[in-house]
Amino acid sequence: MTAHLVLGGARSGKSAFAQAAAEAHATSSGGRLVMVVTAQAFDDEMVERISRHRADRGEAWTTLEAPFDLPDILAGLVAGDVVVVDCLTLWLSNLILAGRDVATEAGRLVDVAAGFEGALWLVSNEVGFGVVPDNALARRFRDEAGRLHQRLAHAVEAVTLVVAGLPLRMK
Amino acid sequence: MTAHLVLGGARSGKSAFAQAAAEAHATSSGGRLVMVVTAQAFDDEMVERISRHRADRGEAWTTLEAPFDLPDILAGLVAGDVVVVDCLTLWLSNLILAGRDVATEAGRLVDVAAGFEGALWLVSNEVGFGVVPDNALARRFRDEAGRLHQRLAHAVEAVTLVVAGLPLRMK
Amino acid sequence: MTAHLVLGGARSGKSAFAQAAAEAHATSSGGRLVMVVTAQAFDDEMVERISRHRADRGEAWTTLEAPFDLPDILAGLVAGDVVVVDCLTLWLSNLILAGRDVATEAGRLVDVAAGFEGALWLVSNEVGFGVVPDNALARRFRDEAGRLHQRLAHAVEAVTLVVAGLPLRMK
Repeated sequence: MTAHLVLGGARSGKSAFAQAAAEAHATSSGGRLVMVVTAQAFDDEMVERISRHRADRGEAWTTLEAPFDLPDILAGLVAGDVVVVDCLTLWLSNLILAGRDVATEAGRLVDVAAGFEGALWLVSNEVGFGVVPDNALARRFRDEAGRLHQRLAHAVEAVTLVVAGLPLRMK
Repeated sequence: MTAHLVLGGARSGKSAFAQAAAEAHATSSGGRLVMVVTAQAFDDEMVERISRHRADRGEAWTTLEAPFDLPDILAGLVAGDVVVVDCLTLWLSNLILAGRDVATEAGRLVDVAAGFEGALWLVSNEVGFGVVPDNALARRFRDEAGRLHQRLAHAVEAVTLVVAGLPLRMK
Repeated sequence: MTAHLVLGGARSGKSAFAQAAAEAHATSSGGRLVMVVTAQAFDDEMVERISRHRADRGEAWTTLEAPFDLPDILAGLVAGDVVVVDCLTLWLSNLILAGRDVATEAGRLVDVAAGFEGALWLVSNEVGFGVVPDNALARRFRDEAGRLHQRLAHAVEAVTLVVAGLPLRMK
């Protein structure tokens, strides 16, 4: 019944924060721990990396892959599930590179998150605090990420900014 | 009598935050709503974009253009005006590209903001949280923006950092 | 007995914040003010710049240079010293460019900071809030900086994020 948006910079500890929060929640609720990864296993290195992360998390976690169909995957989970999505940045990047309709997909994600009947942590990179990027694709990505974060932040119950592993509650 | 600095990343919702704060203020104070835009209408696309933004804001707002002469424009406003400047980043960029004396102009802006006899929201991009940019102009811009923000933050009554549409009050 | 991590963007006022905090501390504790600079004096311009900064700080400060051997330099200071390290970003950059074992050196710094018997402010640039950098070295640097900040933030007593000269206490 609670959706959280966890924003942070690169290597800020945002994933570890979300994972720890979900594990603490599952301990008390007894819900199933589900990690939804959005990285695409497009080569052997990524297959190996996704597999290693899965092993690192241990057997308590069920892992689902959702490089594109994140709203559908989340809609298919059951009440009581304790879910981390890691991360929205890669999902958005996948959508843009595949030429998908980002605004529509983002809208579907916001709807699913707002009505989610479990505990949900959506992890994403805050990428808007640098100078304007040189290349057009990076600018497009930055704009789409900012728009998605605003829409999600408005829709969810809790928003946390993670800096150097430390959480700053924004909402 | 109150000047605010509103910092945020790209697509962080900083402009919408400032605009909503100004509208709420004007509703109670009865002051005139003034939007000071700093974008330069250097081609048809920008002319069209500035015009569309003006239409989006509606008839309650008076729009002034100040790509360079921002301190003078602000100094010419009257007591009781409720003003948003959107944004300092473009103004600074215009000054740098035109070879103006940035430190002097920044000093004049700080003086006008500190003595402003209305309600003022100055919107600007925080651009210093990425890696050092490759090109010298971007580094110069980043340094000048950081210096301007420090001087303004010291001089004004209120500073807010906007992340994903959510305000974090810094001062 | 207290170690602080001071994070901030470029030209955010983080160094001035740390320096002022150290000076206030030394006034009451009577400890010696030590500035540990990590910039390398690899050409005349840098030699001149380091020398100018030293003059700006005034005679109250003792300046030590530690482009590489920061953990050793800190370990050699005496109880009661009031120390600012400015900055970790340059130190990390020096280590990476010289091909040093960054993880080991970072671990040594974390150990020294955690056991420091004086007052210590470690200043560093938060660089992870932009889009993924184009070049591999910048990505590596960003990742190492993020990891170092997380480890230090976990180990030290106080963490402050500086935005536009204003401190936000994170821990």
